[in-house]
Parts: sequence; structure tokens; C-alpha cells
Amino acid sequence: MNNKIKHCTPSGHLIGIVGGGQLAKMTALPALEFGNEIIILEKGEGAPSQTLANKVLMGDWDKASTLIELGNQVDVVTLENEFVDANALRELENAGHKLYPSAKTIGLVQDKLIQKQTLSAAGIPVVPFLAVNSKNDIEAAANELDWPMVLKARRNGYDGNGNATLTSANDIEDAWKKLDGDNRELYVEAFCPYTKELAVMVTRAIDGKIVHYPVVESVQKDHICHIVRAPARITDDLYQHAIDMAKLAVQTVDGVGSIGIEMFLKESGEIVLNEIAPRVHNSGHYTIEACTCSQFENHVRAVLGLPLGSCEMKKPAAVMVNLLGEQAGTGYPVGIDQALAVEGAHIHIYGKTETRTGRKMGHITALGNTIEEAEDKAQKAAKLIRFGAEQ
Amino acid sequence: MNNKIKHCTPSGHLIGIVGGGQLAKMTALPALEFGNEIIILEKGEGAPSQTLANKVLMGDWDKASTLIELGNQVDVVTLENEFVDANALRELENAGHKLYPSAKTIGLVQDKLIQKQTLSAAGIPVVPFLAVNSKNDIEAAANELDWPMVLKARRNGYDGNGNATLTSANDIEDAWKKLDGDNRELYVEAFCPYTKELAVMVTRAIDGKIVHYPVVESVQKDHICHIVRAPARITDDLYQHAIDMAKLAVQTVDGVGSIGIEMFLKESGEIVLNEIAPRVHNSGHYTIEACTCSQFENHVRAVLGLPLGSCEMKKPAAVMVNLLGEQAGTGYPVGIDQALAVEGAHIHIYGKTETRTGRKMGHITALGNTIEEAEDKAQKAAKLIRFGAEQ
Repeated sequence: MNNKIKHCTPSGHLIGIVGGGQLAKMTALPALEFGNEIIILEKGEGAPSQTLANKVLMGDWDKASTLIELGNQVDVVTLENEFVDANALRELENAGHKLYPSAKTIGLVQDKLIQKQTLSAAGIPVVPFLAVNSKNDIEAAANELDWPMVLKARRNGYDGNGNATLTSANDIEDAWKKLDGDNRELYVEAFCPYTKELAVMVTRAIDGKIVHYPVVESVQKDHICHIVRAPARITDDLYQHAIDMAKLAVQTVDGVGSIGIEMFLKESGEIVLNEIAPRVHNSGHYTIEACTCSQFENHVRAVLGLPLGSCEMKKPAAVMVNLLGEQAGTGYPVGIDQALAVEGAHIHIYGKTETRTGRKMGHITALGNTIEEAEDKAQKAAKLIRFGAEQ
Repeated sequence: MNNKIKHCTPSGHLIGIVGGGQLAKMTALPALEFGNEIIILEKGEGAPSQTLANKVLMGDWDKASTLIELGNQVDVVTLENEFVDANALRELENAGHKLYPSAKTIGLVQDKLIQKQTLSAAGIPVVPFLAVNSKNDIEAAANELDWPMVLKARRNGYDGNGNATLTSANDIEDAWKKLDGDNRELYVEAFCPYTKELAVMVTRAIDGKIVHYPVVESVQKDHICHIVRAPARITDDLYQHAIDMAKLAVQTVDGVGSIGIEMFLKESGEIVLNEIAPRVHNSGHYTIEACTCSQFENHVRAVLGLPLGSCEMKKPAAVMVNLLGEQAGTGYPVGIDQALAVEGAHIHIYGKTETRTGRKMGHITALGNTIEEAEDKAQKAAKLIRFGAEQ
């Protein structure tokens, strides 16, 4: 089996992770649990995963030489975010290093216009979109997509950063400026009204084997994931359709590892794919407590060429609530003493040194026999914790 | 609340752990998960918890100055083992540092003769025992305890190390030599035939509040914990009796944190207390996956003065099987690729650099609707992993 990796720690494998935030931290926890170790590549000090790493390399992850320096020290390299330049990643692969997901996958996903073109070509329904190179193109696009539309950055957008809604031609000038259209590639999408946002985490192995987690409902607040409810309360047909679409999407971009697929359920009953995140994803954090093998452990298994674990839920329902910064301040979760007293609330604090408004600082998961029961516990605990509040 | 600790990491507390083995590692994992960090005090390089620690102090943990060096850098100090000299720990406390469990608790527990005297005085049934200062004392003890007897070291015994069975006076000479009776304090216990070994993990808070995990059955192989089955299949009366005894024992030694209580169930139906381990314990490893809040997370909560979590099981049954070294060799778990394919087997590899015969290298936990179902999965996976075998 040529996907097998020779272990280079005493009891397992050494995994290089590009990016050291909470996703790297939550990936490191199960990796360490079964004998592996990690090395982090980060841009600066104080990353949440720092204390779990064997070593922290500091450098610019868009430079091939930095990536190769990481590759030289580990069995396999993986990514915490999809913003690492695909060309630099290709050089890492060309230097003989294992990288999952591959440079090809990242190349197909990190530019949202290319992502949509790729998925659309594979027959997956997506929100109608058009490339735009000028303000005039946007106005012309409205003839096809109709107002309102959403102007988006092709790269590096997350949590609503890099999006601007256009209700009429009058909004173009401001949106163009906001997204720095003179220096950044943009595209437009039709505005897509939906009844629910759905998401599916899929883990795909190097050999193409796929496992999938339950379809979940996600609720955004100010474009940031706020609540995730598992499993989604939709018909069996829609449920199966969402899973089939998620699997096809991951196969289409040849993804390896845990990959998040976000979708919109429209009033018509149609499901359209919104976005692929080629990495562990906020909509799958609940799997840490809720599933036999979490999205994080399965990601580690996948990139190491090991068998994938079961995605089965231990209880009928799980709800995750994000803990977001209220305002600028320290990273301390005021009220955690009270929140820990809420029975069945699993509290995750990422360990960031500073809070900002809307910054993801932690999350809470609770399990239950029903969504309502789980959500009640998770919300009760979440309401007790404040980031950026006076201590 | 004067038990409250001022946080000294950006998002939580800094915990000092004396000892850096697998117990420290499994304690660190949930500690980090909710924003805390750890500093380890170890005697040498290569401890399993090393890569999870903020810092590793190297030194002799029986020296007060070393303990105080640790105390100066953390919010609270806790222990991975009960062998740290209680007098040195008292100096740590006298220097103004928080220590849980306290020097008093360790002093009452680390000398097994004092432990038995203390528990016995509190009305807890223990295996009959006698102090011995000479070989003649042993022979005299047989008049009261009858042959066979077990000669034991008062301190630093674990996993059968420091024990010798005496079937008659002819065995005294060899046993005395084996346990180095001329230089080490010993005592004798009556031989205690039992039908089951039981254990209960208890977590006690600084304010005296107690939570307890299920009563479990443990099976030893060559004096080393081999299998743990939760919950124990005993009558409701015995079950309650075991829990009451465990709670009383922990109160008697004024323990704080997670504490393991090992017991024998005799054919007569009597339960006698075998031993207290004033720390997280092998009989509680199954709680990581099986319970809402594990023995490790509850230990962290207890020593930080935070509310304790629920000990409820997520599934009706759980079984843990230890992975022991077969012979001297590397720390690599040969066969882990196959074991990971066993659905529902949670594999823990401690990350030790070397294997020895009988050394605890990892463990596997599986959940199920019955003990049989859980044990089947755990054993199936455990049989596939070998430490010290040819690779």
C-alpha cells in the first residue's frame, strides 16, 4: 500500500499543520491521543494550538520554501485553512512531500469562482453566479441574476468578510470600494432566499473511501456560524439528497480529509450547494462529543492513510453554540465557573489571547434525546460566558 | 470564595503536574480543551505528556525546592502519582502554594500501613494487616492472620511491584530479600480470596462536594490492571454499599480531585477496601468516552475549584482493555492500522518511547448496550495491537 506513511515519532506519526488556530488545536487533541505528534506552521506567537505542538515554525505559509521546511520535518502536511496559495502547495508536493488535501483540491476550492464553475460542471446545483471584472460587469450581471445580488471576493473571504449585498445599481460603488475591487478579483452571485442552511461533514480517505456525518442545520448570525443542530429536521428524501450532493462535491474536487459542505434549502425544496470548506469545519465541532469518531480524528486518520472511523451519533441529538467575542478585550471567558455547572454542557475554550467583536473564542456542545433538550443545555451554558466583558 | 484561583493564562488556569506520564497526558487533554495550560515536573526527557505541556521542568520531585519552583509558576499543583514525599509536599504548601490533593492526604495514603490504619479507624473494612519490623514479626503475624499471607512494601509499590506471597514460614527469607526488608519498611496482609475486584472513581471538590462514577469490575493479569467493565454486575445493595464505602474513604483521607478506590468482593458478599489511589486511575480510563465528564476533566475542575461535571454514562456499558508491552522494544503499536478499523474501538496510545514487558503502553475503550457487546469490540481491537513485537 503506497499510501502508507513511515512513522517518525516513537509511537506514531508526525503531522504538519499549516495554521495554528482552534481547528489545528482540535485536530491535535485526537492526534496526540493515539500516539501522534504535530508541528505547527504559524505567522506569529500565541496560536491556540501552540502548547500542543512539538514545535512551532514561524513563517509565511504562502512561500514554498517555508512549506518545504515544514514538509522536511513531518510525515504528512495538512491545512487548517484553504487560503494557502495553491501554487506554493504544488511546489511542496513537487518536492516529494505528502500533502492532504492536495494542491489540486485547494486550487479548485480557494478561488470561489473556480469552485462554483467546477461544481456546476459536475452537475451540482449552485447559486447562480457570474464572473465580473469591472463595475460595468456587475450592472450587466443584474440582467441575468436580477437584484438583489451579492458581490463577493474570489479569495480569502470568511465569516461574511469579503461579501457585500447589492440591492440596486446604486450600491455598486460602495461595495466595489469595500471589497477593494480595483485590487482584488470579485464575482457576483444571485441573492438566494432559503428556509434553512444545511451542512454535511464528509471525510474522504486517500483511497477514495468516504464516510459522512449527519446532515445538520446551521444558523448564522451576522454571517458567522452561531448554532448547529444535528441531525437536520428535514424529510428523508432531502436528507439523502444532501448527503449524495456532499459526497459528489468532495469527489469532484478530489478532496482528502474532513471537508465541510454548506448548502441552502430553498422554499421550493431545492437544495443548492453554497460553499465547500476543504478542512475541518465549524459545522462539525459537535462531532467531538456526539459521534463515535469526530471530524478531527477522522481527518487525522484520513491524511495518515489509516482506516476511517464511525460517524454514528451516540445520542439522538446534539446542538453546538459558538462563543463569540462581544468587544475587544482579553481572552478570558468571564462566567465559565457558572457555565461549567450546567450539566451536560461541554465547554471548549480555544485559548486565544485577545477577544474582538465576533471573534470565535470557543463553543459549547450538548447532547440530548431531542434537539430541544440539547439546545436548552447548550444555550443555558453559552449565555453565562462572555468574552470581552468586564471581569 | 477563597478557593478561587486567579487565572494566569490568557483564557484559563495554569496547572502544575508532578509527573509526566500517561495520567498527566490524559489530564492535560481536557484541561487544554477548556482554555487551561499545564507545566510538567519530570525526572527526565521523553515523558508522554511532554508535547502537551507549556513547559517541562526537570528535577527531583521529592525535593521541596523543586516543587516550589513548580509552584511559583502555576495556579495550582496536582500529582500524577502518590509517591512524592509528603514532607516535601508540606513545604510546598507552607510556601503558600495550592496543592490538591493535599500533603495531608498524600501522607495518609502513600504509606500503605498508615492508609490501612486510617481507613480501619474510620470503620471501613480492610484486609486484615499487621506491621512487621523483622522476619520474626512475620512468623508471629501468621498466628493472627494465618498462612498464606502477602508481604508488602509500605511505600512505592505499584502493579504488584513491592508484593510477595508467603505460603509458609519457608518463604519468608526469599520474600524479605526480594522486597529488601533490611532497607525498606514492610507490612503483612492476610491473603484475601475474592470473587470480583471492584473499583469506584470518586471526584471530591475543595468544598467537600462529591461525585462518583459507576462501580466497575476490574480484572488483573500478573497484578496489572487488564480489563475494566462498567458498570459492575452486582446486586443493587452491593453496588450502593461500594459507593458509600468509596465516598467515606475519600472523606476519611480528606481527598480532593479524582481518586480511585479498589475493593475486593468476597464470596461471603462482604466488600473490603483494598487500596486508595489518590489520583486519576486506570480503572477510570473508560470515563473518557463513556461519561459526560471524564475522571480527568473532573480532576481538573476539582483542583481549580470549579463545579464538578456529571458522571453519567452515555451508553449502558463500557469496557476498557489495557495495551501492555510484550517484551522490550520500541514504543510503536504494531498493528494499529488494523485496530483502527474496528468500529467503535477508541484507541489510546500513550506515546512512550520504549516498551518493556508488562509496561502500560495504551488502552482501548468501547461502549455498548451490554458489557459483552462493548468487550467484544475492545478485545477485537486490542488483540490486533502489539508493543515490542517485530515490525
